[in-house]
Amino acid sequence: MSKLNELAEQISKLDSNLHQKDFLLTWEQSTDEIKQTLLVAQALKWLRDNNYSTKVFETGIAVSQFRDNSTRTRFSFTSACNLLGLGMQDLDESKSQIAHGETVRETSNMISFLTEVIGIRDDMYLGAGNTYMREVADSLDDGLEQGVLPSRPAMVNLQCDIDHPTQSMADLAWLEQEFGSLENLKGKKIAMTWAYSPSYGKPLSVPQGILGLMTRFGMDVTLAHPEGYNLIPDVIDVAKKNAKESGGSFTQVSSMDEAFKDADIVYPKSWAPYSVMGERTDLLRANDHQGLKDLEQSCLAQNANFKDWECTEEKMKLTKDGKALYMHCLPADITDISCKEGEVSASVFERYRIKTYKEAGWKPYIIASMIFNRKFKDADKKLIDLMNRNTKRVL
Amino acid sequence: MSKLNELAEQISKLDSNLHQKDFLLTWEQSTDEIKQTLLVAQALKWLRDNNYSTKVFETGIAVSQFRDNSTRTRFSFTSACNLLGLGMQDLDESKSQIAHGETVRETSNMISFLTEVIGIRDDMYLGAGNTYMREVADSLDDGLEQGVLPSRPAMVNLQCDIDHPTQSMADLAWLEQEFGSLENLKGKKIAMTWAYSPSYGKPLSVPQGILGLMTRFGMDVTLAHPEGYNLIPDVIDVAKKNAKESGGSFTQVSSMDEAFKDADIVYPKSWAPYSVMGERTDLLRANDHQGLKDLEQSCLAQNANFKDWECTEEKMKLTKDGKALYMHCLPADITDISCKEGEVSASVFERYRIKTYKEAGWKPYIIASMIFNRKFKDADKKLIDLMNRNTKRVL
Amino acid sequence: MSKLNELAEQISKLDSNLHQKDFLLTWEQSTDEIKQTLLVAQALKWLRDNNYSTKVFETGIAVSQFRDNSTRTRFSFTSACNLLGLGMQDLDESKSQIAHGETVRETSNMISFLTEVIGIRDDMYLGAGNTYMREVADSLDDGLEQGVLPSRPAMVNLQCDIDHPTQSMADLAWLEQEFGSLENLKGKKIAMTWAYSPSYGKPLSVPQGILGLMTRFGMDVTLAHPEGYNLIPDVIDVAKKNAKESGGSFTQVSSMDEAFKDADIVYPKSWAPYSVMGERTDLLRANDHQGLKDLEQSCLAQNANFKDWECTEEKMKLTKDGKALYMHCLPADITDISCKEGEVSASVFERYRIKTYKEAGWKPYIIASMIFNRKFKDADKKLIDLMNRNTKRVL
Repeated sequence: MSKLNELAEQISKLDSNLHQKDFLLTWEQSTDEIKQTLLVAQALKWLRDNNYSTKVFETGIAVSQFRDNSTRTRFSFTSACNLLGLGMQDLDESKSQIAHGETVRETSNMISFLTEVIGIRDDMYLGAGNTYMREVADSLDDGLEQGVLPSRPAMVNLQCDIDHPTQSMADLAWLEQEFGSLENLKGKKIAMTWAYSPSYGKPLSVPQGILGLMTRFGMDVTLAHPEGYNLIPDVIDVAKKNAKESGGSFTQVSSMDEAFKDADIVYPKSWAPYSVMGERTDLLRANDHQGLKDLEQSCLAQNANFKDWECTEEKMKLTKDGKALYMHCLPADITDISCKEGEVSASVFERYRIKTYKEAGWKPYIIASMIFNRKFKDADKKLIDLMNRNTKRVL
Repeated sequence: MSKLNELAEQISKLDSNLHQKDFLLTWEQSTDEIKQTLLVAQALKWLRDNNYSTKVFETGIAVSQFRDNSTRTRFSFTSACNLLGLGMQDLDESKSQIAHGETVRETSNMISFLTEVIGIRDDMYLGAGNTYMREVADSLDDGLEQGVLPSRPAMVNLQCDIDHPTQSMADLAWLEQEFGSLENLKGKKIAMTWAYSPSYGKPLSVPQGILGLMTRFGMDVTLAHPEGYNLIPDVIDVAKKNAKESGGSFTQVSSMDEAFKDADIVYPKSWAPYSVMGERTDLLRANDHQGLKDLEQSCLAQNANFKDWECTEEKMKLTKDGKALYMHCLPADITDISCKEGEVSASVFERYRIKTYKEAGWKPYIIASMIFNRKFKDADKKLIDLMNRNTKRVL
Repeated sequence: MSKLNELAEQISKLDSNLHQKDFLLTWEQSTDEIKQTLLVAQALKWLRDNNYSTKVFETGIAVSQFRDNSTRTRFSFTSACNLLGLGMQDLDESKSQIAHGETVRETSNMISFLTEVIGIRDDMYLGAGNTYMREVADSLDDGLEQGVLPSRPAMVNLQCDIDHPTQSMADLAWLEQEFGSLENLKGKKIAMTWAYSPSYGKPLSVPQGILGLMTRFGMDVTLAHPEGYNLIPDVIDVAKKNAKESGGSFTQVSSMDEAFKDADIVYPKSWAPYSVMGERTDLLRANDHQGLKDLEQSCLAQNANFKDWECTEEKMKLTKDGKALYMHCLPADITDISCKEGEVSASVFERYRIKTYKEAGWKPYIIASMIFNRKFKDADKKLIDLMNRNTKRVL
């Protein structure tokens, strides 16, 4: 029995219902649905690695809308959609008529007549990004119901203000690979900690995504950040609830050292203070350029008080056997490489560099899996069909 | 017999010759050619709706050139080309060497070595857009004849200064669907009227396209606009001639009320005064920024005299049984939604909103049909081939 | 035996090893490798011309990175990748997180998880472009070795500071077609000469590419330019060495007239003075805007001393029987057409215009050949497979 058959069998035993459901926050999915997303990602990777074409769409387009810069997510999204056979069309708001005061419900339908997937990054404003995605999703539902659209495009959250599910799911796929199984993650300590960066205004969605997801699998999740750098309270509540249900734990501490102590995994990463993100959203909406500049300066000054929040060799020694797995969503702010003082020392990063690349390498497959599962009710059967069809990906 | 066979049979009976002919103005096509374009659009839609792949190109690219902003036309064009199997490459003049003084005849050939379709939007300058398309088209003809190009890419007019054929043809497909047949359109009154908008410089091509096309099918076409907002005189002549030949009528009135009276269909839509478009073209060419600003101000002030040209519930009551079909090319300037005072009141628009979306939904199929007909001499047979080939669009 | 079989047989007899080797400079390839690149380009063209699909990739993306403007190379690259079945994703540095200080080794891997080809244009800075490509290439090699990437994307040099191999190879393919065979090029005189242009800062890579490649085939290559407009000395050394080995010659003269005398082929084309390109690189790196403006002014003034370096009818009369083949990479600066005084007179250009278009028409096939050869060890067999598979490109 091939590995593909094994994966399909595992999928068939899950009680999941990803069909025609958007994947906007990991904590809105059941544990079986999370597992199915991982398994289908592995299956698609196996098929590609063994030169089976996974083109399930002969025609159809995917739409990307990036309201913030992106390299790896953009390429992951394009790669994932291409892996399934879709062409890409970017919705560039500066080149569209959206500025004419067009409504979200209208644009959502106008771009979707022959569209299979819409991927959105909107992570700049607290309270806005996820809300926008749901408004688009509702408009698409309405379009389908009213007969405007022949089918409902999948909505892929490519990072919002609350969660970054393609990132956290890729991180989980990587942990599963590195530790051998999801089961093996039970009881492992992961330290999600703030780290110093000379840059400003990084979104909260990565740490929130890690807390919201890793607490599902019996891990001991520890969060550490300087005072003021707290996360959205609702997400903290989700983490607490998850930890309780999964038999793991969720702990908050106030120093990187405490968090790193005996950790199996460390995830040191900068983010903006919660209150600053709120103020920034207000100032951006008020178009207050001077206010924004002042806020940036004061925020950078505030950050500078915490330069010792750096993942150094010394700090790594505090972890389990001094050998915790270092993770990052990339790009990291690496001291002496990408900046003078940053999130991680060059020697630590260099030791784990290839591993962080492999971590990132799961993202295209996770995105493809999300699309695949949303489109096909019997994902396991479709995967077997792809193997049996036996179309070579490369001649 | 499937619906596809019926459509193919209807196509086979037409006396049309769309093969290797550009579709730049609807009034350059015979009535049978218009009908064939509609029928092939319906056939492609039927094939897709029934999960037949309509990929007729295994490789080949489509080139888009947008000299004005676009959302729905851009996505319609990409979707149409993708539906037939083509990849998309945008010709972004700001990123090209065209600024180096390259000639149109050269660029046209340079982008076309392996290209099947070129779609152009150039609607800003009176006398320029359609002329530019013909210059490109002639260059491509020359390239084919001289052995530079292996085949002649289809030229798709995605809106010029004179016509907007993908829009008006989609509108016609929608009317055919809504009224049951082209035959049923005979004697129906359609009111193409100017409407107030707080924006400036909207092209004349939509109303011109409606006049030029709808007068072909025995409809009573009524045009209304405030003084000074007249259209290109040649197009008015076309409308008159068409109406005479088709057994319909073409009437010009000077108020929205008159136009709406007993209308079966209303199409209230803003456009710039003809003379302003001419002045603007001169100023743009002279690079006279102050002149342009002054013109915009005076034009907006002029517009503001006609704020009562709004499609309100009251005005709708004037139409046939108060139930005329409202149409718009979108995005509409909706009072209290996209602007303070606009082309249409929120309640009227909301009642017809889904219908306008369905109207827009024909555009990808119309564009695909134009390309299909230009490429294949025996379109009816190729459609049957696609059904018989029986390749699923989605696995 | 079809022409395809003949080409495959010729390829099978070559001693070449293009598999998994980048094609960054023509002079790093053996003569058999150059020949194979030409033959595979011809084979792919034959297949397409005879309606065989050459789609060898069912899925996979190509990445383009243009650090300078481009029209024909961009479209050639997109067309080539599409011809083989790849989707396109542009790496637009302004929309990416690269500005965050991300390293080349990281970005190279992040964009490559499911990528088959990376095409880069980086021709602005002496000493930088080719170096950058090699840094990307090394990063990709490392990514493959470390298990980050499932396969090594082909690297295509779309013009660097040293060479423009897709251009010079397309030029060679054109010469082979025009003169009947590579053999027939022996003893032919080609004049690569500087020409006046009112523009500034044109790269040196085209003339360098011509010198480095055309000296391989027994041609008499003559270089002419005004004092100060010399090329990178290392490339001159390559040209000398090549000429010696191939039984041709390499000559440097100081006037266009001398170069044109009895020439079979002329390639008059502007480029920036070598020293100016160096200064410019320094100023750009120092972000010295005033210095750059001053340099541009002085350079344009210097250029203006050499307005008589124009390819006129009179100069053409000096060539072999007055009938030398005029070549250009396009766009040319044509006197009275694209500028007041330029590289070539309108009448000369017009006479050869279609030929220069045909010259350019080889570029998509050359690029596709480079990718094909890098991917497939037995290119000849794969070409036969494509013919035998007999999938129609167009239905």
